Amino acid sequence: MPKLNLQPLSGMPEWSPAANVTFAAWKRTLADVYTRHGFVPLETAAIERDEILAAKVGPATQKQIYRVIHGSTSQSLRFDLTVPLARYVAAHQSELTFPYRRALIDRSWRGERAQAGRFREFYQADADVIGRGSLDHTYDAQILAVAADALRALQLGRFQIQISHRGLLMGFLHSLHLLDEAAVIQLLDDAPKIGLSKLKSELQLLRLDTFEIRHLLQFANVTGDLATFSQAMLRLDIADQDFEAALQELAELDANLRALGLHPDEYQFNSGIIRGLDYYTGVVFETILTDHPQIGAICSGGRYDNLVSGFVSEKMPGVGCSIGLTRLFSQALALGLIAPSRASVADVVVLPLTDQHDRVAQLATQLRAAGAAVDVYWQPAALKKQLRYADATGAPWALLVGDDELAADRYTLKNMISGEQTSATVAQIAALVQTRE
Amino acid sequence: MPKLNLQPLSGMPEWSPAANVTFAAWKRTLADVYTRHGFVPLETAAIERDEILAAKVGPATQKQIYRVIHGSTSQSLRFDLTVPLARYVAAHQSELTFPYRRALIDRSWRGERAQAGRFREFYQADADVIGRGSLDHTYDAQILAVAADALRALQLGRFQIQISHRGLLMGFLHSLHLLDEAAVIQLLDDAPKIGLSKLKSELQLLRLDTFEIRHLLQFANVTGDLATFSQAMLRLDIADQDFEAALQELAELDANLRALGLHPDEYQFNSGIIRGLDYYTGVVFETILTDHPQIGAICSGGRYDNLVSGFVSEKMPGVGCSIGLTRLFSQALALGLIAPSRASVADVVVLPLTDQHDRVAQLATQLRAAGAAVDVYWQPAALKKQLRYADATGAPWALLVGDDELAADRYTLKNMISGEQTSATVAQIAALVQTRE
Repeated sequence: MPKLNLQPLSGMPEWSPAANVTFAAWKRTLADVYTRHGFVPLETAAIERDEILAAKVGPATQKQIYRVIHGSTSQSLRFDLTVPLARYVAAHQSELTFPYRRALIDRSWRGERAQAGRFREFYQADADVIGRGSLDHTYDAQILAVAADALRALQLGRFQIQISHRGLLMGFLHSLHLLDEAAVIQLLDDAPKIGLSKLKSELQLLRLDTFEIRHLLQFANVTGDLATFSQAMLRLDIADQDFEAALQELAELDANLRALGLHPDEYQFNSGIIRGLDYYTGVVFETILTDHPQIGAICSGGRYDNLVSGFVSEKMPGVGCSIGLTRLFSQALALGLIAPSRASVADVVVLPLTDQHDRVAQLATQLRAAGAAVDVYWQPAALKKQLRYADATGAPWALLVGDDELAADRYTLKNMISGEQTSATVAQIAALVQTRE
Repeated sequence: MPKLNLQPLSGMPEWSPAANVTFAAWKRTLADVYTRHGFVPLETAAIERDEILAAKVGPATQKQIYRVIHGSTSQSLRFDLTVPLARYVAAHQSELTFPYRRALIDRSWRGERAQAGRFREFYQADADVIGRGSLDHTYDAQILAVAADALRALQLGRFQIQISHRGLLMGFLHSLHLLDEAAVIQLLDDAPKIGLSKLKSELQLLRLDTFEIRHLLQFANVTGDLATFSQAMLRLDIADQDFEAALQELAELDANLRALGLHPDEYQFNSGIIRGLDYYTGVVFETILTDHPQIGAICSGGRYDNLVSGFVSEKMPGVGCSIGLTRLFSQALALGLIAPSRASVADVVVLPLTDQHDRVAQLATQLRAAGAAVDVYWQPAALKKQLRYADATGAPWALLVGDDELAADRYTLKNMISGEQTSATVAQIAALVQTRE
């Protein structure tokens, strides 16, 4: 037999059993938050026609796509959850009630350069609202409130949502009368990576003069609460309709965010939030963990008025948020932000000290019927080895079942943390061991 | 803009919004059953190295594999959940506690010929136990009990697990001293598809004489409870150690299944269950819906003593079950076995009849904090249109919020089924609308 490579492929996530337990709990927690906000689960297949993906992909992502070969159809793995949503909405318009709200916690694939904390297969937890014809801006606030609730539920400490508006950026750039707006947007988005002096020299290459560059940097470096931010933006003295409308929208957003329960510390306005050349048209945001900014953006999104319209003639504006779940989970693990889980989901491990397997099976069935999660160690082994198994799984309780216990229908329940033992009936055990909601 | 094909790829599942709600509920129900039996969630990436898949794939499946192109690694989408599990267990032995129990509800891909009820992307709900060195046969019964619990939880009516043992088949075939056992196994597995006369002629081509064919058909057509089945098997008069050991194991299995709460109607023994040329070595089973046998096998599995051993030198026997979830769901939908769901997950839809969006947002936040799943219709619209929205989503309650209601802090709650309206406080509403556990 040739020696096989048993390691996962480069950039593919593969966690320990205990981490898998936590990751499954994360997914459920987030699904619950999305449900509480009225977002409806919706799945589509992982593979899409290339013509669909190509219609919505930028050149950088194009190179990262995983092509899939089977039969003659030109097809690939999706690179995000939003483009398949746009296709679904376009294809199933008549079945949907608008505004349509959908939540999805699922995988996508991008062949990014492999490096720590970057994954080629990754989960995102998305919530989106799509309207037909129009979509009230209160939904923008709603999406930010969902994102905030989701991040609170993960209990990773303080976070801050950084908010800007595409209209501010575009209005400002219009006022400069630039030749190549797209190049400037790209540079601003790359600014945190390339640094200030490189940014300046690149802007000079794009023919911006010293005054314009200073003005641009002034624009792109404003942060603060609504009052501070608005005042700084107004001081830029931009006479542009988009710019003014954007400021007005942000003021409304601020009021709605407060009403939706966001704490002033949980968000701020930040004109440096660009979101690349993406499909955003209005409010845009990124989120950082306040005490761990080095992780980068953990939840991003914004308003996209034209994404679905590429697939249909009708106007279908949308707004959404996306938590980069795999990346966030991996970083949170590495930083110790996640309390170590146990590798067991059982409330109790039953240890048979008898050959009457059918009687032990009956007991386990009774406990399950009473709602307990029950593991049974069926291997023939001495008590010591059985206890070692129970301890290694991390289950909080072990139940010792010998012939005497079966005869008396009372069993020895051992607290695996304190080591304490008590004798108890099935009903007592079921009540004692259940710690889950 | 060229006209794009917005339909999903052939063989890819894509459900209505309401069906998606049910499918998400199915996945959660099954995850809960697996947890109650102490099975621990574990995920691996969808893409595996071709060398891993090739080590465990039969020639028929080999042709169905979706190759994935990115970079230079030879890689494909997995065709089941068991081979990646075997690789994981082999690679992570030192981190695992054995017997290792894992549950996974996830996708695989096979390029099968597209036809109704066959999917190229499909979910399976798997539960497996893998031992190191040995694995007590009580785990075989445990797996069948999990499968039965899972199928009961889906509430699709009566089901029956059809059980056989690879040792019976192999023992019987040894007694015939055949040249090509594999070809005969394949034919028996195909028997339901090709029919009796074709089966006979093919067996003749394999040089079986009339007596042997009659004997073989006699063997492969025994069904019944343990007593009936065992007697029929003993009448075949096979002097073979594997054959006798298999009968002994089935007797033990029967006792354990009863103890684990399986009803006599929920399973029977059936020597016609072959499970192809798969990796099974002991107990094998398939499950049918008793009242809808045309759906075919909905949950299958068995004992595999050598699957992991292909990857490591150690003996690592396992046993598992797999529900073909996407296929079962699609057939159950088509047959009307699933009660029509609503396309909403909200307990209540809030309808704002006021411009005070911030006050309405506050109210929604209060209701969510009290545990209700709340949708808000933020579009500016008259009451009639708003009620149409609430009705279309299928939410059971609507909450009418005007300026007067906000001033009095009492709101009009409308039962969307009966049409009845009551005036209620936030606390009363939260208590009334919550129907979920």
